[in-house]
Amino acid sequence: MRAELVAVGTELLLGQIVDRHSAFLSKELSQLGIDVFFHTSVGDNWGRLKEIVETAVSRSDLVIFTGGLGPTEDDLTKETVAEVLDVPLVEHPPSAEVLERLFSERGLSVPPSNYKQALMFDGGTVFPNPNGTAPGVAISRDGVTCVLLPGPPTELYPMFEAHVRSYLESIRPDHEVVVSKVLRFFGIGESHLVERIDDLIRNQDNPTIAPLAKEGEVTLRLTAKANTRQQAEAIIAPVKESILQSVGRYVYGEDEESLERVLVTALAQQNRTVSLAESCTGGLLNHMITSVPGSSAVFQGGIVCYTDEVKKSMLDVSPDILAGPGAVSMETAQALADGALRRLGSDFALSVTGVAGPEPAEGKPVGLVYLGLAERNQPTRTYRLNLSGSREKIQIRAAKQALYILLERLKKGEATNEAI
Amino acid sequence: MRAELVAVGTELLLGQIVDRHSAFLSKELSQLGIDVFFHTSVGDNWGRLKEIVETAVSRSDLVIFTGGLGPTEDDLTKETVAEVLDVPLVEHPPSAEVLERLFSERGLSVPPSNYKQALMFDGGTVFPNPNGTAPGVAISRDGVTCVLLPGPPTELYPMFEAHVRSYLESIRPDHEVVVSKVLRFFGIGESHLVERIDDLIRNQDNPTIAPLAKEGEVTLRLTAKANTRQQAEAIIAPVKESILQSVGRYVYGEDEESLERVLVTALAQQNRTVSLAESCTGGLLNHMITSVPGSSAVFQGGIVCYTDEVKKSMLDVSPDILAGPGAVSMETAQALADGALRRLGSDFALSVTGVAGPEPAEGKPVGLVYLGLAERNQPTRTYRLNLSGSREKIQIRAAKQALYILLERLKKGEATNEAI
Repeated sequence: MRAELVAVGTELLLGQIVDRHSAFLSKELSQLGIDVFFHTSVGDNWGRLKEIVETAVSRSDLVIFTGGLGPTEDDLTKETVAEVLDVPLVEHPPSAEVLERLFSERGLSVPPSNYKQALMFDGGTVFPNPNGTAPGVAISRDGVTCVLLPGPPTELYPMFEAHVRSYLESIRPDHEVVVSKVLRFFGIGESHLVERIDDLIRNQDNPTIAPLAKEGEVTLRLTAKANTRQQAEAIIAPVKESILQSVGRYVYGEDEESLERVLVTALAQQNRTVSLAESCTGGLLNHMITSVPGSSAVFQGGIVCYTDEVKKSMLDVSPDILAGPGAVSMETAQALADGALRRLGSDFALSVTGVAGPEPAEGKPVGLVYLGLAERNQPTRTYRLNLSGSREKIQIRAAKQALYILLERLKKGEATNEAI
Repeated sequence: MRAELVAVGTELLLGQIVDRHSAFLSKELSQLGIDVFFHTSVGDNWGRLKEIVETAVSRSDLVIFTGGLGPTEDDLTKETVAEVLDVPLVEHPPSAEVLERLFSERGLSVPPSNYKQALMFDGGTVFPNPNGTAPGVAISRDGVTCVLLPGPPTELYPMFEAHVRSYLESIRPDHEVVVSKVLRFFGIGESHLVERIDDLIRNQDNPTIAPLAKEGEVTLRLTAKANTRQQAEAIIAPVKESILQSVGRYVYGEDEESLERVLVTALAQQNRTVSLAESCTGGLLNHMITSVPGSSAVFQGGIVCYTDEVKKSMLDVSPDILAGPGAVSMETAQALADGALRRLGSDFALSVTGVAGPEPAEGKPVGLVYLGLAERNQPTRTYRLNLSGSREKIQIRAAKQALYILLERLKKGEATNEAI
């Protein structure tokens, strides 16, 4: 089944918003085994929209539109598709009733212009919209199915979950399914990773193997096609096993997991707590950990110590260290981790100090970062990183490396060092 | 000048990445007065890419491609455009030299496949790429200009800044310019804001007025077209003035400013410092402030106090308060702000405590948040928020409200309260 996506709205062409819907829908369609061949964005303009609809229905079996279902004269998607497919629009009484209820709840009568939102394709399938005034609607004609969905994300995503996915499953001509498994790596660069599994990548077919590097992490996406989910999973399993045998020590998680989520889970399983002392990452590491629901069980607290005074007063870094090796040093990283462990009363403490940029500091270059890992009744370890990129990238990479060091400690007692 | 954008890459059609380049380029082209009529994404597939190139060059004056300039057989953009426009590709010696230098720096010789990155359109304009191996290139033929740019954002954006914008300025047929001015509001909702300037919005023409709500903020974009930048600015000025007269008290900044940037600037101008005590925002507020380059001059430090013990030991919150009103209370917000001010030795201290969710806590509902603002030799103020949305949204809104409260204090001594 050949599909394409059309996003309608002049705001897209002005760059006022980014089209995220096409990526969302593409991912969903790929899971359903439906190939997507084109994305198009077009403005709220009758002539150009009509040109796009004509092209789309001539080359694809399924066209999914987002946007242009509002009540104004600029909202033209339904009207244009009706014209191109030559299907009349007729009033859909349940949708009209919803409109009337929505407005009467606010003490208003329905403005005449809004009634056009209750017009639906004759013979179409209507998807109710509990979050707005524009229902979704699908219509099949001459072997082509057009699906029209509202543009606001708070309306589109719930509608897709509730109605559209199962509708698309019902119209799929065959039942080929596509299953993806994502392996998440840290501590190894993309080129090294790809080198080590070169033979698998070279001979890939089903599953395909797609590497992607992002913010210091690398992912491998294995995607298999088969008649059933079970068969697809069975096709992926041996390839995944080969990858794990070769580079499994760098895998920290799968699918939608993140370093912070895996770390919080590992700490909870071992019933241990962590605290933080952050200088150059300025709160990012705290925020990453606390963004995980349930982190309160394992996270004691953190100190963001931007100034020397706070490093001294809140974390007991000695004036000698700050005057000697300086705030960006192995010694300070160690003292910060020790101070956080003692002051915040946790089982582990992580520290970060470095130069995030944009300017060098203490005569030290941008990207030089020291990490500390303190542990009750154990010697404190320190790590030195040379990171590159913008201030934001350096902060993210340093924070992820800190998460990874503790995760490795929890997993096998010692961090791997390749990425450092 | 009619322009369209084509993003090339199968990863777009699989939904593995979101196409942000089209929004970026659209915004830039709109500033240059060039109208963008279509965005298309297509995969690394010769036949379908050729179909898209043929359509694009037949209906537009300018087509900008992103992606597909890599060294592999899958990278087809240049080859396809060369075929459709019937322009030969010839070796470009300076690009070949750059390739040789890049590889020899890593002790390697250039792989034969990479040399295709040094092939350029005969008679084209080459844009050097200091951040990768794929230069950009532009070619005009029969009244159509094709511009090919690399896909990685770290290569595309610097290249656009350094070369592409000025190239596009040079090929624009006339000199109509488009100027935008963004006004940034906090403390007023979108619907209230729009209501208060209803007459201006109703009668908009040149400039246009576009409201946009995002994460608790609202922006108004005023966009004017004229023959010169000065004329466009003169068209915007009186409309901006009318808006400021009506709702100016909610404006905190313009254009690319952010609450945290404006706050850091205001603190620096008044030579004052701030410290933080965060519970439910978990480090986000620290991170927002320290993400501003130069924040070290005004930011003393912060304590992320997730547990009651840390609230007591590091910020001197009394056990009576925690046992009585609880950790999520006006009293705790006040004690946290007082503790941060005293312990971290700053001029101001902000505190945040609340229930970010997903579960209620202490029998208190998700979204209930208390903020504290302590100030040396002044009574501490507290604020109560009822926020809605996901955990992440609640954290962002609470953090922004805290920034806003201090900003208002610095501006006029007292926070406006409408959004609280």
